[in-house]
Amino acid sequence: MTKNSSNIMALAPNTSNKRETVCIFGTGDFGRALGHKMIQAGYPVVFGSRSTQISSLIPKDAEVLSHAEAAQKAAIIIIAIQREHYNFLTPLAEILQGKVLVDVSNNLKINQYPESNAEYLAQLVPGAKVVKAFNTVSAWALQSGTLDASRQVFVCGDDMKAKQMVMDIVRALGLTPLDQGSLLAAQEIENYPLQLFPMWKFPVLLSLGLVAFFFFYCLIRDVIYPYVYENKDFSFFIAISIPNRICPILALTLLALVYLPGVLAAIIQLYRGTKYRRFPDWLDKWMLCRKQLGLVALAFASLHVLYTLVIPIRSFVRWRISSHIVSQALNNKTEPLDNTNAWLSDSYLALGILGFFLFVLLGITSLPSVSNNVNWREFRFVQSKLGYLTLILCTAHTLVYGGKWFLSPSAYRWCLPSAYMLSLIVPCIVLVVKFVLVFPCLDKPLTRIRQGWERKPQYSK
Amino acid sequence: MTKNSSNIMALAPNTSNKRETVCIFGTGDFGRALGHKMIQAGYPVVFGSRSTQISSLIPKDAEVLSHAEAAQKAAIIIIAIQREHYNFLTPLAEILQGKVLVDVSNNLKINQYPESNAEYLAQLVPGAKVVKAFNTVSAWALQSGTLDASRQVFVCGDDMKAKQMVMDIVRALGLTPLDQGSLLAAQEIENYPLQLFPMWKFPVLLSLGLVAFFFFYCLIRDVIYPYVYENKDFSFFIAISIPNRICPILALTLLALVYLPGVLAAIIQLYRGTKYRRFPDWLDKWMLCRKQLGLVALAFASLHVLYTLVIPIRSFVRWRISSHIVSQALNNKTEPLDNTNAWLSDSYLALGILGFFLFVLLGITSLPSVSNNVNWREFRFVQSKLGYLTLILCTAHTLVYGGKWFLSPSAYRWCLPSAYMLSLIVPCIVLVVKFVLVFPCLDKPLTRIRQGWERKPQYSK
Amino acid sequence: MTKNSSNIMALAPNTSNKRETVCIFGTGDFGRALGHKMIQAGYPVVFGSRSTQISSLIPKDAEVLSHAEAAQKAAIIIIAIQREHYNFLTPLAEILQGKVLVDVSNNLKINQYPESNAEYLAQLVPGAKVVKAFNTVSAWALQSGTLDASRQVFVCGDDMKAKQMVMDIVRALGLTPLDQGSLLAAQEIENYPLQLFPMWKFPVLLSLGLVAFFFFYCLIRDVIYPYVYENKDFSFFIAISIPNRICPILALTLLALVYLPGVLAAIIQLYRGTKYRRFPDWLDKWMLCRKQLGLVALAFASLHVLYTLVIPIRSFVRWRISSHIVSQALNNKTEPLDNTNAWLSDSYLALGILGFFLFVLLGITSLPSVSNNVNWREFRFVQSKLGYLTLILCTAHTLVYGGKWFLSPSAYRWCLPSAYMLSLIVPCIVLVVKFVLVFPCLDKPLTRIRQGWERKPQYSK
Repeated sequence: MTKNSSNIMALAPNTSNKRETVCIFGTGDFGRALGHKMIQAGYPVVFGSRSTQISSLIPKDAEVLSHAEAAQKAAIIIIAIQREHYNFLTPLAEILQGKVLVDVSNNLKINQYPESNAEYLAQLVPGAKVVKAFNTVSAWALQSGTLDASRQVFVCGDDMKAKQMVMDIVRALGLTPLDQGSLLAAQEIENYPLQLFPMWKFPVLLSLGLVAFFFFYCLIRDVIYPYVYENKDFSFFIAISIPNRICPILALTLLALVYLPGVLAAIIQLYRGTKYRRFPDWLDKWMLCRKQLGLVALAFASLHVLYTLVIPIRSFVRWRISSHIVSQALNNKTEPLDNTNAWLSDSYLALGILGFFLFVLLGITSLPSVSNNVNWREFRFVQSKLGYLTLILCTAHTLVYGGKWFLSPSAYRWCLPSAYMLSLIVPCIVLVVKFVLVFPCLDKPLTRIRQGWERKPQYSK
Repeated sequence: MTKNSSNIMALAPNTSNKRETVCIFGTGDFGRALGHKMIQAGYPVVFGSRSTQISSLIPKDAEVLSHAEAAQKAAIIIIAIQREHYNFLTPLAEILQGKVLVDVSNNLKINQYPESNAEYLAQLVPGAKVVKAFNTVSAWALQSGTLDASRQVFVCGDDMKAKQMVMDIVRALGLTPLDQGSLLAAQEIENYPLQLFPMWKFPVLLSLGLVAFFFFYCLIRDVIYPYVYENKDFSFFIAISIPNRICPILALTLLALVYLPGVLAAIIQLYRGTKYRRFPDWLDKWMLCRKQLGLVALAFASLHVLYTLVIPIRSFVRWRISSHIVSQALNNKTEPLDNTNAWLSDSYLALGILGFFLFVLLGITSLPSVSNNVNWREFRFVQSKLGYLTLILCTAHTLVYGGKWFLSPSAYRWCLPSAYMLSLIVPCIVLVVKFVLVFPCLDKPLTRIRQGWERKPQYSK
Repeated sequence: MTKNSSNIMALAPNTSNKRETVCIFGTGDFGRALGHKMIQAGYPVVFGSRSTQISSLIPKDAEVLSHAEAAQKAAIIIIAIQREHYNFLTPLAEILQGKVLVDVSNNLKINQYPESNAEYLAQLVPGAKVVKAFNTVSAWALQSGTLDASRQVFVCGDDMKAKQMVMDIVRALGLTPLDQGSLLAAQEIENYPLQLFPMWKFPVLLSLGLVAFFFFYCLIRDVIYPYVYENKDFSFFIAISIPNRICPILALTLLALVYLPGVLAAIIQLYRGTKYRRFPDWLDKWMLCRKQLGLVALAFASLHVLYTLVIPIRSFVRWRISSHIVSQALNNKTEPLDNTNAWLSDSYLALGILGFFLFVLLGITSLPSVSNNVNWREFRFVQSKLGYLTLILCTAHTLVYGGKWFLSPSAYRWCLPSAYMLSLIVPCIVLVVKFVLVFPCLDKPLTRIRQGWERKPQYSK
């Protein structure tokens, strides 16, 4: 029942080495899109369907047969139907014997079923070789060719040869197969497209919590306190002044939290005298989301920069400056240049600029395409040496910002210190401990431990 | 005639499994560069040339023979000569029988010939298996090793095995082969290196047109009008003030144009009651260049940010502020703080900062290496949810900017409203329609349509 | 001695087509990490060790045998031990006959030994097929799965088939193999992980030297001179004012140095009348680090932008402006708007903004993932056309900045011209020479030379 309009003949490559026929069960969106793409790549495609009536939506070069007939024509059968309808395959078990079944299904919820769809399929048709693949690719992206989101196709399966066949098809379609191992990985692969930035969850929740805390802290100190004591309405501080206090605090704290786990790990290793024991679970998880923590910190730092740079445009600031100048002029006095002030103001700005600049550099090197082009030594140089330099510069920026008023009692309102002072706690702890760890009496044993030496050799031979 | 200086022997790998000999017809720049690279990768290379006199430019390890002799030594022959000279191959047809001919040629103009060079080659030597490859790689990049521009090599051909052989060579040279299907794709592959940002053409032309329109609009309102009525020379507004009006208008309008086609598509699907009919052609094209539209919008937004941040450094602004303060001092009056103004100014700046921040986030996630690392759900979350939030923030930024003078008649000059008001038209339409589409009475049928349901089932079975 | 807890059986894929066994010599960190990863990918792994006592650190699914026993079980043996201990392999020579030995070792210093470790191994066991691989991957990255730094595995070896087998394993582990040719490349591959940004060395050293020079230059002109002649203490200029002079100077000079070698190359080609002679070595090296020069220039330009934008927030600037306004008010005079000043100030800012914007565009297109997605013509358009436009805009920005005082004698202090004037030397030379080269009388022969034409044909046939 092959169509043979001249137009279609032109499209079919007159190959001497034809690709092997692929069978697709199911004529839904995804099955059709995949079939269309495969025909483009030179595969003869045959659809298996309940009704063999030809719909105008099915790619023109494809055959449509009954499930049993279609299955007999190909070694690879793509099961593009919902898991709920898998049991229609049971009567076909004999025909499917030895065939490669590709499970492309997705669920609606994470861990919706006790076993993955692919494993369920393998149980239903024990004689077939089940391979999980293509579930991360969207039908729309296949059709439109705009594979902006992932070109990666995760593949898993127990049969090496079957997996290889599927991976060859994936490559032929211009996608990148990633072998994830045996069919046990199917659960994870099926959960993957349902995930929404799992690595970002902790950093984002943590920073939301901190934002809420510091917002109310600043609201009390900067809006409610002057309203109560001086009856001034500074409610408009909510728009820029308070965010511009919260952002640098979060940037500095989160940046310090990137380096804290490394310092803790060093202390644990020194205390235990070995590196051959797993870190506590929370430390492991913390270490794995350091990149995300750092990028959230960078986001807050960028916002801080923007909020700071618009200061001179703010109507309130312009009013404050002009009223100050007018009062000077009316009082007939000119202020001399305060050299200490000029030094403090300039050096705190300079430290902030350099810190932010290095921070952005760190962010750029964490882009996947950049970090793929550096070797391990370079990556560690940037992320560790430059990272600590950034932390030092940003901490110094905050310390100099405090300037003369730092720790002075007049800065307290209702016993609450300025918010920026709270932001210094974690970075100062990290820097002090790191400084202590650099001393030879601690650095030497730590280096030896990391090279495999043990104080009480019990784990390694 | 193999050279055998000791130095060269050291370079030749003493392999037990040698790679297969490759023949190159033509000793021009590209042929030599490719030959050099192949020798490095361990391929024995033999050049076919009119004169077998050895030039000092040909890689030292290569043999140079007559065309006929060279062709007999290899299964793969790379035709590194101009299309105009292809007819010299006709007498060699017998020797080329069954060989793999690799067409690496490019043209000077898009669609220069009725058929692609590779298809022309296939017609000339019907017994050979023609594969198109390497035309996107530059000789200079091959030689210098700086393959900054594309490492991708598009490959097409009718014979699967021949194509596979060529793709293996491509991989051995450290390049990435991309199978584009049958030889019919050769035309497109030959046009590819001649293209100059084809997807960017429409967004760039559109924005150039809008820039021209708004430039004259602002010129009339802000320079000519005050010159005519107040005899003031504000011609220097052309440098910063007018660009800083045009940039935000274009950024907002283009951002709205990114989301307009999605809204139109939803209306069309609701009206038709099915998703199984193609959208009009202009809508399809529009949807495919949304990413480019968005990035052009981001460029204008970034320029707007820079233009805005330099405002306090401008000599004109400093003069205006200082003369305002001086006149206050001379008139012996101090203005009180206008709380409403402070609120308006701060909140419009804050909305702009947040909008721009999200906009940059959108831009970063559209980097190929970032979007390759997110799954489809995450990509859609960022591009759709965050995208609409950006549009809302930027529209609110513009609305608050208008502030008290919004729609007031004094803002009209020669019946022309302020330019920023024109920029609100498209975003407001998009947001209103999107808001309406979110209502359950419309959202429910739309979701069902997108899942495949049809009001009048006529297309699917 | 296979472990058979039920838990482990579940993890072992019940494959019909098992992968081939891999043997690993050495149970250190790297050997264990690699073994663990291979078991995950479905390879049966057997460790060869001096003591076959099972350590709790060795992956549970792996066997541990003596070296001789382990070697007999596999065709591929990974040598995960230090080079110093390689001689223990000599007695095993007979068993290792025909096996594939994978050298994964690294050295502590660049070119530590006269021959590479892999070549040394090949000499020790002449009957084996030695392949170099995996040395760029870190044990920690393998274990934690965070392969942020390079996924690339450089592979080299004299035996094609052995290399292919190793590259298949690399791919199965989810890494990207890159074939580097014969075993002679091993030296370079072993040096690779010890390199620290080799391409960046020259640009960074050059800019550090220039920074030091211009720092003292500005220190003398802007701090010491006023201190000596006017007894004013401007030492705080060190924090912001002087860096903000150095950064634009370096940005402009380095940007011009990106385009200078291209201009020199054109002159050399015109003079020689041929392109078939190698450029002098320094020019070749210079051309290869143009990208890095450009990115360093972009870094300085970004710092210049940040330093400039904080100007209105600086305490010194606020004091200067307010004291100027107060003195105006006290003297009862108002300055009229100086239209020329307004034009100069606005246009120099506008030129700087546009120049910086294009500069950032250039930087973005040099990101590996972006430049991989453009064709050669597009890449050259961006890097050459847009690059020169950037250089022109930035040079014009500096020229207009000088404005009325440009070349006026009052700008000299101790015979030293303003620092920005020095920064104009290189860009002006580049632009003038480039302008001359665009004339048809020079452009035509140059184009012909680049297409292969020679004035005195002596090199090509």
